[in-house]
Amino acid sequence: MKRKIGFVYECLLAGLIIFSLSAELPEREDYVLGWFIWGLFAVDYVIRLMLSKNKWGFVKNHPIELLALIPVDQLFRTLRLIRLIRLVRLILVVKRNNSLLDLLIEKYRFDKLFITVIALLFLTAIPMAWIEPSFDSYGDALWWTVVTTTTVGYGDLYPETTVGRLIASVLMFVGIGLIGVVTGTVASLFSNKKTDLPDQLKYVRDK
Amino acid sequence: MKRKIGFVYECLLAGLIIFSLSAELPEREDYVLGWFIWGLFAVDYVIRLMLSKNKWGFVKNHPIELLALIPVDQLFRTLRLIRLIRLVRLILVVKRNNSLLDLLIEKYRFDKLFITVIALLFLTAIPMAWIEPSFDSYGDALWWTVVTTTTVGYGDLYPETTVGRLIASVLMFVGIGLIGVVTGTVASLFSNKKTDLPDQLKYVRDK
Amino acid sequence: MKRKIGFVYECLLAGLIIFSLSAELPEREDYVLGWFIWGLFAVDYVIRLMLSKNKWGFVKNHPIELLALIPVDQLFRTLRLIRLIRLVRLILVVKRNNSLLDLLIEKYRFDKLFITVIALLFLTAIPMAWIEPSFDSYGDALWWTVVTTTTVGYGDLYPETTVGRLIASVLMFVGIGLIGVVTGTVASLFSNKKTDLPDQLKYVRDK
Amino acid sequence: MKRKIGFVYECLLAGLIIFSLSAELPEREDYVLGWFIWGLFAVDYVIRLMLSKNKWGFVKNHPIELLALIPVDQLFRTLRLIRLIRLVRLILVVKRNNSLLDLLIEKYRFDKLFITVIALLFLTAIPMAWIEPSFDSYGDALWWTVVTTTTVGYGDLYPETTVGRLIASVLMFVGIGLIGVVTGTVASLFSNKKTDLPDQLKYVRDK
Ligand SMILES: [K+]
Ligand SMILES: [K+]
Repeated sequence: MKRKIGFVYECLLAGLIIFSLSAELPEREDYVLGWFIWGLFAVDYVIRLMLSKNKWGFVKNHPIELLALIPVDQLFRTLRLIRLIRLVRLILVVKRNNSLLDLLIEKYRFDKLFITVIALLFLTAIPMAWIEPSFDSYGDALWWTVVTTTTVGYGDLYPETTVGRLIASVLMFVGIGLIGVVTGTVASLFSNKKTDLPDQLKYVRDK
Repeated sequence: MKRKIGFVYECLLAGLIIFSLSAELPEREDYVLGWFIWGLFAVDYVIRLMLSKNKWGFVKNHPIELLALIPVDQLFRTLRLIRLIRLVRLILVVKRNNSLLDLLIEKYRFDKLFITVIALLFLTAIPMAWIEPSFDSYGDALWWTVVTTTTVGYGDLYPETTVGRLIASVLMFVGIGLIGVVTGTVASLFSNKKTDLPDQLKYVRDK
Repeated sequence: MKRKIGFVYECLLAGLIIFSLSAELPEREDYVLGWFIWGLFAVDYVIRLMLSKNKWGFVKNHPIELLALIPVDQLFRTLRLIRLIRLVRLILVVKRNNSLLDLLIEKYRFDKLFITVIALLFLTAIPMAWIEPSFDSYGDALWWTVVTTTTVGYGDLYPETTVGRLIASVLMFVGIGLIGVVTGTVASLFSNKKTDLPDQLKYVRDK
Repeated sequence: MKRKIGFVYECLLAGLIIFSLSAELPEREDYVLGWFIWGLFAVDYVIRLMLSKNKWGFVKNHPIELLALIPVDQLFRTLRLIRLIRLVRLILVVKRNNSLLDLLIEKYRFDKLFITVIALLFLTAIPMAWIEPSFDSYGDALWWTVVTTTTVGYGDLYPETTVGRLIASVLMFVGIGLIGVVTGTVASLFSNKKTDLPDQLKYVRDK
């Protein structure tokens, strides 16, 4: 099962690389996206630094990551290839946090939930983009599935066809189920002995 | 109590058959609906195939279901009677998953909740369609009850009359209760011993 | 504390009587409201009938309630005084279910939560109706507080002033807390022994 | 860790003082804000009065707070400096309730969650105000982050750029996680022995 999730990740990351290199984002959005990915990377680096026992050893053992912290892409943001730096960062963050993810998967069987929700978001967007007249693109439909599954429901986009509403209803109840699973997991984390958590973090820390 | 739920199912399925054979859906929606039901059926088939110990035996023992996997209705989609194939599939899926549903009902007393929520969605839609000037049809009102109970609330439809708002308030608190029950069940599943789940799945697998 | 809740109820019921006798509802809404209250009363009667051990004894011991089941107000709905019948029914339902409510209050300390949420809904509506230009009446503001606290958020009404948004933010986090308390209570109900529930229902049944 | 939270508080309070003295609120909003802060203070005072064993002693030992209960700022509301009274009240409320907050932090590790959510609300508002054409000010963006994280989603403001939608998606899943943590904490409070709560309140009462 771990391999399958690994595969899903590879696909998502490959998709991100293609999207990142081909997308024609407006300058401001591109700039924000760059800092956003840099922020994710920096937070990941700082958290791992704080969790490690030998802080100086951690800095010495991860020289490339320290280098990657320099926001070089913000300086030359017209260069398209510079975007690859962002992706390398993003991949590093995701790879690192796999250890936390593996923990969630092993202990709480999040694997099927995770794949199901991701798949539902991306798959249901396909027919919705096709049958709904107000959904102009696949990106629109994907945005709508996220807004619906999280039960936020801005109302900027909503289905108007009968079949679209049927699919939307399924997504909404999936959303309630999602909240239930997240809440249930957190609740069982809280009700368990508190001393377990640091032990579990050790597992993350060692990587 | 089981018989009553069985009866509710029969009614829902009968309603679906009548709706499916009489509805004049636009071509695209009809096409998506066909693949949607086929997808439900295929997922159901694959899950049961994976849960069964003797995979080849499973395929041999369910020849009609294998036949029903051929997306024949997508090929001749102008024929109205071909829609019956979809319904046979849908009924098979629902009947099979009754075993999972029975489990939920027996262990977690979901029966009353299930009937109550379904009844509330369909019943409250009746007066709303009648008194709300912006709710054009019963379908509109039913869509609104789903959007409200799941607390998504797009805002494409909302009550404007005093009594409509009163009924809506009741539905919203039912929605919060629904989230609570789903979450509570999931939380108790997580806090119970993990080894129980496969045992419970055996119950589903045997059917 | 029980007395205080009793007092809150008396006030709410008195408010309902005054509202019911003075409100000039359109005919359709009035009609739906009549059936809505009748439905609440009928559901309450049937549930108690089913919970009682001696069914025939229950029917004989509650002759007035059986009489009140006749939908007399639906037949002569132009008469204003006939609305009092609805109120008598509503009061009977609320009084009966006090026994269930007392259970919730004693076991789960819902009393403070209950009063707090009711008070917040009614009190925050006052300044909102006053400072928000798009909130035309107190009824509008009250509708908005319900829509916000349940996190539905249709978007038909939303605050535009700075202070209004500040108050709204408080209400939203109260809403999340409300979901948390409802969910937490249900979760603890599920995680406790299942055999307790019928015992608790006995308490309700005896009344 | 406590010191850091203390520091976050000092910053928030300093920001409030500056905002309160510089903001040019319309008269009505200013009036409502005054009563809102007074209400918080009064509720805080009454709760602590009711929790204290020696009520008369409590009144005598807190003479300044009794003085601050006089709604002097509502009488002379044109004076700008009178707003400082509101702030002194607000600070007193926050300082007092720190004891309750410390309890939450010590027992349930709310510290990181608390700082993370506050930081996310304020930080994500910065790029959103910059890249989203419909977000006119930082205040607008901050209002949008609150509406999104609580999953209310009025739809008065919603992101239209690709990167804005990406950031919004992250916020929504944070919102679901927030609901999960609040619910999980409440659920563990309910599932623990009920007798603990008064003991915990003693801790608050002594201050
Ligand atoms: K919503
Ligand atoms: K909404």
